[in-house]
Order: sequence, then structure tokens, then C-alpha cells
Amino acid sequence: MKVIVETSARHVHVTKEVFEVLFGKGVELTKKKDLSQPGQFASNERVTVKGPKKDQPNVSILGPFRKACQVELSATDARSLGFDIAMRESGDIKGTPGCTLVGPCGEVEIAEGVIVAKRHIHMTPADAKEAGVKDSDIVSVKVDSDGRSLIFGDVVIRVRDDFALAMHIDTDESNAGLVAPGTMGEIIK
Amino acid sequence: MKVIVETSARHVHVTKEVFEVLFGKGVELTKKKDLSQPGQFASNERVTVKGPKKDQPNVSILGPFRKACQVELSATDARSLGFDIAMRESGDIKGTPGCTLVGPCGEVEIAEGVIVAKRHIHMTPADAKEAGVKDSDIVSVKVDSDGRSLIFGDVVIRVRDDFALAMHIDTDESNAGLVAPGTMGEIIK
Repeated sequence: MKVIVETSARHVHVTKEVFEVLFGKGVELTKKKDLSQPGQFASNERVTVKGPKKDQPNVSILGPFRKACQVELSATDARSLGFDIAMRESGDIKGTPGCTLVGPCGEVEIAEGVIVAKRHIHMTPADAKEAGVKDSDIVSVKVDSDGRSLIFGDVVIRVRDDFALAMHIDTDESNAGLVAPGTMGEIIK
Repeated sequence: MKVIVETSARHVHVTKEVFEVLFGKGVELTKKKDLSQPGQFASNERVTVKGPKKDQPNVSILGPFRKACQVELSATDARSLGFDIAMRESGDIKGTPGCTLVGPCGEVEIAEGVIVAKRHIHMTPADAKEAGVKDSDIVSVKVDSDGRSLIFGDVVIRVRDDFALAMHIDTDESNAGLVAPGTMGEIIK
């Protein structure tokens, strides 16, 4: 099975409560563009992530609001900002580093949530059936490029009715493979 | 055949003439530590690389001096500083972007030499014989890690009497595989 490979740049997810401290009471998150996963979008609002060694300004907030704040960095970012690297699936933030988020109206210290995302493939149950895989399976994905072809191991399958078929990697992984926009990967088990 | 996988951080190579403009006439490059390749060393001297979008301070010079200046960046760096990405083997700099190097005593504009290094394996003729490969061959290398295992394709074999057996990848490639120091890769053809 072939799957489009999408590169996730550094971003944050926030709760409505944290957003209002950062951007002001009653202010709304505004959509910049839709993402491949239904309902998910990049917003126009940006924050600074304060790390132990360095700050990273201009980090995009992805919407909609979530139940917990989460900061997704590349390992290059995490090292540069001074965070320990906690490679996790989205949502699995227990025991990960915290940080301070800074917006135009205020700042919030989050106790945990700074992760390097584990590479993964979103798919529907129908896709999973076609590929012969199930939720939480680990697969490899072959990605060809001009001079930096790779086979990614340890790719997590994530199955949900409201997912769209796409593989997500971070900027380090994308750069390691010089993965151009629109590149298709091949799932190999 | 197994080979140690070493991560090259961003660095520059300079000529003696350029070094003296940057650091002063008669000043010597001083060794900080030896590298795995015989005669090669990291120096204590550091420069700023001025890119079209941003500057990168504190970039280590590797010695000894070379016949041409060369700046080796990760693709993450190259994008961040604003350079076009020219993925090349070391020494193959024709037509690559130029930049300005800044030292404590002066600055020099180089017309070309900013590259993203093509991943490669240094080896002796005896190693090549044992592995059943020759100079310029392209191989794949399997690298296992805790949660980000990879098979690197497009790895160039470089054979010379004065090389030591080691695979070199950049920080993006290392982070994409969470490659710990001392990790061994397996050459697969």
C-alpha cells in the first residue's frame, strides 16, 4: 500500500483555557489552513516556547483546542532548546518535559507535554483492512528520493474512523530523506 | 559488515589564507580533539556563517587546512539560514551556494562551498575487499535504535589507504534514527 508522506513542522496544541491566558479572554483561534486530518487546522496564532537553553519564537498553534497542551518538536529543536528528548505518540505526555509558552497577553508554564513525535500513519479501518494491519501495529515504510532514500522502521499504525490516510514525519526525518512534498511511501511489513 | 555510525555536526573547512583573514596573520589553528579519520581534528576556532536569511554563530573549524573552503550544514540548518540545498560529496562544491564567513579579525565571502553532505562510509582497500564493495559504490546501511530504526539508502563508499572505517551522517540523519554514540550499522547491499 502507498501512502502520502507529510512533514510536520514544530507546533503546539493548547487548551482553550491556556489559549485565553496567552491571547486574551474571549479571543478565538483563527484558521490559516486546513490540514490533511479532518477538522485539524493550522492557525494564524503563534507562541514562543521557552526552553532550558534557548527560546523558540514563532511556533504555530494547531487547532482545534485539545484537553491538554502538547509541544511537538524535532529532535534537532529539542536539543537546541535544551529539552530532554521524549519520543512519544501524540497524547502520551505523562512524564515528558514541561516548558513555558509565551503569547502576546501572557505566559503559561506547562508541567509536561514537550515531545518528539513518533512517526506514524493515520488510516481508516477500511485502509487498515486493505493494508492488512491493525491499530498500534509497527511497520516499515520505504521512501525513495533523489539521493537520500530511506526505509523508516518503527512506524506506528493509528486507525480511527475520522482519520485520513497519511504518514507523518518530523522535519529531521523529512530532511534525512530529502522528502519532497507529495512523496509517496510504500508500507512494507 | 558492521561499521560505527558517527554524527557530523555542522562545521567548516578553510584554507590557510582564509583562516588568516578571519583570525589574523600568523595565527595557528589549534587542536581541540582528534576525529576518527587519521590527521583530521576539531579545532578550538569558531566562525559565524552568514546565510541569506539568518546567521549561524559558533561553527567549528575542522583541520587541517584544505585547498578550498567548505561549509557542511544539515538540511535543517540550510533551510533555516536560507541556503538552497546542495547535497554533495565532500570536495564536490562546483556550483553550490556561497556565503560569508566571519571571524574575530575579519570576514571573507566565499563564492561556493555550502553543502549538505551525502552520507558515506570511509574505509581502507582491505575493508572494501572484506565488504565486497569498491570506491563510489552505493550501499544501504541498517541502523537499529530504540524506536526509530532506519535503513539508510544511497550511502556512498569512499575508499582510501588513509581512511578509517566509519559511516558519517549529519545531525538530521542522526536525529531521524535517534542514533546514539557508538551505534553500529550493518552494510546491506
